[in-house]
Amino acid sequence: MSSTAVADFQALSDSATFNRWAEFQVREAADGESELVMPWRAGEMGQYAGFLHAGLVAALLDTACGLAAASLVGRVLAAQFSMNCLAPARGHTFTARGHVVKAGRTLVFTTGELFAHGDDSNVKLVATASTLLVPVVDPPATS
Amino acid sequence: MSSTAVADFQALSDSATFNRWAEFQVREAADGESELVMPWRAGEMGQYAGFLHAGLVAALLDTACGLAAASLVGRVLAAQFSMNCLAPARGHTFTARGHVVKAGRTLVFTTGELFAHGDDSNVKLVATASTLLVPVVDPPATS
Amino acid sequence: MSSTAVADFQALSDSATFNRWAEFQVREAADGESELVMPWRAGEMGQYAGFLHAGLVAALLDTACGLAAASLVGRVLAAQFSMNCLAPARGHTFTARGHVVKAGRTLVFTTGELFAHGDDSNVKLVATASTLLVPVVDPPATS
Amino acid sequence: MSSTAVADFQALSDSATFNRWAEFQVREAADGESELVMPWRAGEMGQYAGFLHAGLVAALLDTACGLAAASLVGRVLAAQFSMNCLAPARGHTFTARGHVVKAGRTLVFTTGELFAHGDDSNVKLVATASTLLVPVVDPPATS
Repeated sequence: MSSTAVADFQALSDSATFNRWAEFQVREAADGESELVMPWRAGEMGQYAGFLHAGLVAALLDTACGLAAASLVGRVLAAQFSMNCLAPARGHTFTARGHVVKAGRTLVFTTGELFAHGDDSNVKLVATASTLLVPVVDPPATS
Repeated sequence: MSSTAVADFQALSDSATFNRWAEFQVREAADGESELVMPWRAGEMGQYAGFLHAGLVAALLDTACGLAAASLVGRVLAAQFSMNCLAPARGHTFTARGHVVKAGRTLVFTTGELFAHGDDSNVKLVATASTLLVPVVDPPATS
Repeated sequence: MSSTAVADFQALSDSATFNRWAEFQVREAADGESELVMPWRAGEMGQYAGFLHAGLVAALLDTACGLAAASLVGRVLAAQFSMNCLAPARGHTFTARGHVVKAGRTLVFTTGELFAHGDDSNVKLVATASTLLVPVVDPPATS
Repeated sequence: MSSTAVADFQALSDSATFNRWAEFQVREAADGESELVMPWRAGEMGQYAGFLHAGLVAALLDTACGLAAASLVGRVLAAQFSMNCLAPARGHTFTARGHVVKAGRTLVFTTGELFAHGDDSNVKLVATASTLLVPVVDPPATS
């Protein structure tokens, strides 16, 4: 994809104050596919055992799914989100990928995966997700 | 429940750096029921339209479900998390409640609700969740 | 509710050949609430251990949720269905209940429970479900 | 895979009276992968609009996921089942595929897809699923 498009989706992500706080970096968002990266910060992102908090696992997966959908149909809101936590989310960096399975007029079905990057270039699948998104219909502009 | 028990679960919550960052306050955690409160911070918690980010909706619901489970079976890890986003999560405070539906030896089934507190004492149900948790078996102590 | 309304929803249920095969009996369908009953038939409805098959657990819960939604918004189609299997579904009769949590224009959120009726009037909650349904918009009549 | 193994899993499937009623045919069950086929019977398998009933969509997906898991860890029971209904399930034959994502000691995570086979060799993805299964621990034999 063009770097222009990535910059547009990075700006969309940065319009969310939580995404800025979490330093989400958009790597790809085109043709129903997306990739999002987040650096680990131990002092603010952990659950009680020191792994990445489930809320951040969900935030990464939900955002990656939303970007994949937005690349096809514009702005969306999540109606349903499901995730499976396969392994403790432990790493210095996390990468989430999103994929559109089907984009209809009223619903967009997506799936996503979260990978943890550890030492020695070790990459591990730690969670998967499935989301249903509803395209946001903008009100007609008034003049 | 006794204030001692609430203090214990607040300490458990505070052992998670993300929970401290989000200022989760445990109001109840006993007999398979829990209540958790979080104040809204616009500058760090929003999604792109200015509502509470789905990651924080998930974090509140997952934590409330985990506390409800922990009040019966001790420490747990989430294996599966599902949530329905019923309405935009907008308010000055959010309250999550968790309930144990069934606590088995290998799996604990829970449900949760998230309420947004707006102006004029308006309270609105904005999301529901269902989680499957696995009790954490501590390794036997060695001497 | 009036017995007329129950008869209407029984007719809707009977328009599904699978519902007739499974002998679904509509007990209630009004104001976003529903109740559905099914008798157990060991020779056609079992999974490998002899309990009610997960497909029938899903069919009962999905139909109960659909009836609850239909009582408010007319015909619907399921977009997403989740269920938790709490206990082996064993009994001579099964009762499913459905409830509308929120009925919007494009999506209806529902929940449901499945109860197994055993000997000695024993009633047990064996599964819970959550479904997202989309109202079916009939095409405009042409003249 | 060997035809012996397929015959064993077909026998396991046939031990479920519902699977025999629905004429489930096991095509593959090995190494965490499975394939299952079912012929459409309009007079017993339809929902109210004449498509395959959601209960049978669930039954096929749940069984395919269960066979995929069973090929790695032996008998299992479903604890959680989620499906997305992408399109009306219409066809003369349905094929479900199951895949193990992760097989742990206490939980097996799987995914599945359901394909509808229509006229002119048309094949369409109509539903996807995700299941969590618990390995069944057989009680020790007594003599």
